[in-house]
Amino acid sequence: MSAWQTYLDNNQDKFLNDFLEFLKFPSISSLPEHMDDVRRAGQWVMDYLNNIGMENVQMLETGAHPIVYADWMHAEGKPTVLIYGHFDTQPVDPLDQWDNPPFEPTVKDGRVYARGASDDKGGMFTPIVAAEALLKGEGALPVNVKFFFEGQEEIGSPQLPEFMEKHKDLLACDLALSADGGQWGEDQPSLMLGFKGMCALQIDVRGPNLDLHSGLYGGAVQNPIHALVRILDSLRSPEGKILVGGFFDDVVDLTDADKAGFAEVPYDDASYKKDLDVDALFGEPGYTTYEQTWARPTLEVNGIYGGFQDEGVKTVIPSLAHAKITCRLVADQDPQKIFNAIKTHIEKNTPPGAKVTVTALGDGVEAYLMPSDHPGNHAASAVLTELYGKKPYYVRVGGSLPVCTLFKKYLDVYMINYAFCLMDEQAHAPNEFFRLSNFDRGHKAYCMLLHHLGEHGLAS
Amino acid sequence: MSAWQTYLDNNQDKFLNDFLEFLKFPSISSLPEHMDDVRRAGQWVMDYLNNIGMENVQMLETGAHPIVYADWMHAEGKPTVLIYGHFDTQPVDPLDQWDNPPFEPTVKDGRVYARGASDDKGGMFTPIVAAEALLKGEGALPVNVKFFFEGQEEIGSPQLPEFMEKHKDLLACDLALSADGGQWGEDQPSLMLGFKGMCALQIDVRGPNLDLHSGLYGGAVQNPIHALVRILDSLRSPEGKILVGGFFDDVVDLTDADKAGFAEVPYDDASYKKDLDVDALFGEPGYTTYEQTWARPTLEVNGIYGGFQDEGVKTVIPSLAHAKITCRLVADQDPQKIFNAIKTHIEKNTPPGAKVTVTALGDGVEAYLMPSDHPGNHAASAVLTELYGKKPYYVRVGGSLPVCTLFKKYLDVYMINYAFCLMDEQAHAPNEFFRLSNFDRGHKAYCMLLHHLGEHGLAS
Repeated sequence: MSAWQTYLDNNQDKFLNDFLEFLKFPSISSLPEHMDDVRRAGQWVMDYLNNIGMENVQMLETGAHPIVYADWMHAEGKPTVLIYGHFDTQPVDPLDQWDNPPFEPTVKDGRVYARGASDDKGGMFTPIVAAEALLKGEGALPVNVKFFFEGQEEIGSPQLPEFMEKHKDLLACDLALSADGGQWGEDQPSLMLGFKGMCALQIDVRGPNLDLHSGLYGGAVQNPIHALVRILDSLRSPEGKILVGGFFDDVVDLTDADKAGFAEVPYDDASYKKDLDVDALFGEPGYTTYEQTWARPTLEVNGIYGGFQDEGVKTVIPSLAHAKITCRLVADQDPQKIFNAIKTHIEKNTPPGAKVTVTALGDGVEAYLMPSDHPGNHAASAVLTELYGKKPYYVRVGGSLPVCTLFKKYLDVYMINYAFCLMDEQAHAPNEFFRLSNFDRGHKAYCMLLHHLGEHGLAS
Repeated sequence: MSAWQTYLDNNQDKFLNDFLEFLKFPSISSLPEHMDDVRRAGQWVMDYLNNIGMENVQMLETGAHPIVYADWMHAEGKPTVLIYGHFDTQPVDPLDQWDNPPFEPTVKDGRVYARGASDDKGGMFTPIVAAEALLKGEGALPVNVKFFFEGQEEIGSPQLPEFMEKHKDLLACDLALSADGGQWGEDQPSLMLGFKGMCALQIDVRGPNLDLHSGLYGGAVQNPIHALVRILDSLRSPEGKILVGGFFDDVVDLTDADKAGFAEVPYDDASYKKDLDVDALFGEPGYTTYEQTWARPTLEVNGIYGGFQDEGVKTVIPSLAHAKITCRLVADQDPQKIFNAIKTHIEKNTPPGAKVTVTALGDGVEAYLMPSDHPGNHAASAVLTELYGKKPYYVRVGGSLPVCTLFKKYLDVYMINYAFCLMDEQAHAPNEFFRLSNFDRGHKAYCMLLHHLGEHGLAS
């Protein structure tokens, strides 16, 4: 048995106790009254990192919640791996739905219940324990390691771009691992190769300059609701294909290998429909459900409103009608270019008698797509296969994870989602928990991956 | 000078004082605390009718606000004319925008300011004064007259259909005149030949059984907002022509005479557009603005709502989306048949993956259309032409006036809108007023019309 494994086996109780201590900080980043608690949680992490032999441990200021940095750079000739995570948490309301106080961690049936247990204190503490086992058991790490833990992930990391720009050199690395994320299932590993980007906008349509009596003006005046539905209906074909000119120009097509990878992931049309209680699925023709949701860009109206919305009848032709749209983008779509294309399409499709305004909501987010044959994926895949006895699924996610995009943009490295929580752990809800079995497995997984990278490097 | 004219001339101050007394009752039919005031206003009307020599004066119960009835039936061989009006009023809020207390009538610059002055106490008191002048001046009325004044017009006359069904014989007549309504302008008379009917409905579209994360499901699931805009967009052509199958089946087409009549009414495209601040008008091809608004059926979405409607972005695929529609119908469209046609169209045009529910809002109202060559119109036209020195415009109204439809349905008579208020008199707003010039003119107009009908009858 390797020295790190022996260390892990001998210190199970200590790790659990340390974890419970970490969970006690109410480090809620969105609430000003918890500003100091976020910082105290960061300080606890720093103390821990110092104790296990990490070096250059420091708290770096962002202007808001701080970042904790540490490194160990003595693996000469070996890759440098940056490990990302966050020590802030979501708020706890509704508090009365918690079985135990959210910051008094409770162990029950192999699970630790506490706010932040799964997202992401359990996640980020996992590679710390792995580093501890390697440093204490073997006296060294197999690769160079940088820890980068932030305190404002749950509020969207507003200072992160500026921080990364400023600290490029400090953060420079060959590969990044995210200890925030998860696996497909308790017995099934996965590698997430892509996250979608985002482009959000609002459409405001104005018809007449005031609400009109539908009996006096109906039939002669453009109704902005009708104009809006015409605009919105022009954006997609009846089958759900997006009809905006230029929308697909920069889309990276799915390769046969991508499609084959997706096809290995279990999917059942009937139960998908049953879960949502719909009689038919719907989407861009020629693509499977996973291909549609993971790898094809989308355009969805998230909200629509205008005119009379209460009970009963009001015979009005409203002056205004509104809609909100978000597009989920894929590589290599540029959010600004997509916004411009949609704006042009809308202006061209606005019927006479109506005025339209199209406003971007935010700057947009670029999609993230990691090559499936990246050596980091090969390494992670090998380790996960050994640990789970199964090859990982190669999947993507329709949601956005801006931190991946930031790492690519500012540090020019890919980030591998290498974390061990599961989707059912109530991450943002009451009674959040983390499985101790995954805590243990995660320690091993990080020790093994760092060793694998130490042995095989990152040459492709 | 005729005897009725002399009586009118000699009693101007009395009429004004009586009118002001009538206006003091706060007979707001929509407010329970004013139930008794509505009834007291009705009692005042009964006393007045008794004093001037009307007969069979009585208060008839409806189950809610009462109806005042009176008649004078001694013009043997002459037509029976029923005159309709209402003694209830709108509420007064916002009270602080009134220059004078709404139930303390104030005379200023030839106008009487009070709630109900124009709508409809001024209107309904006009034929009462005319009857007084005829009875006191000449000892008789030139035709048989029935007064029918209700106390719940402003809340939609909910008990009226049942009441008219029950009192058919008492209300039987050859022609009805509405003392509720108005003229085109201070110097321009008009005859309103038609009012539109109504069919109102709500569309509820359900997609998935709960709001979904647009990143996880977007692209694979029908979004009920997209389904709704597709449905709504299918209801009308880009030019505004209604595309519902069977919608126009029963529409009475405009005759050349109708079109010629409309064309005599001044209309200016540029100022119409300027008033509404729109760069183009819009509507069913082949029809003028008056033809569209007065004589062609319409379909308008009055309200739409679904999903996220606050500031910013929420990346949701909502479970539900809703729209409210009203159609303004023309003769001889049947509201129930139209509702069924729209429901069928919507169900047929609902995209897969969405469920739709179409619900009627209310029972609908049939349109009212009076033949322009009806002898009642000839009589009214002759009198108005003499009084104003101008022929009346023959117009229609895009709004609904259910009382006309009820008279046609239960009593099988047409109702002529024969009233003298104007559109600018703030009928439902603060500082409602009635022009004393129209009060005087109205008295003459009613005396002259009753005499005309007495002389010429209603034979066509």
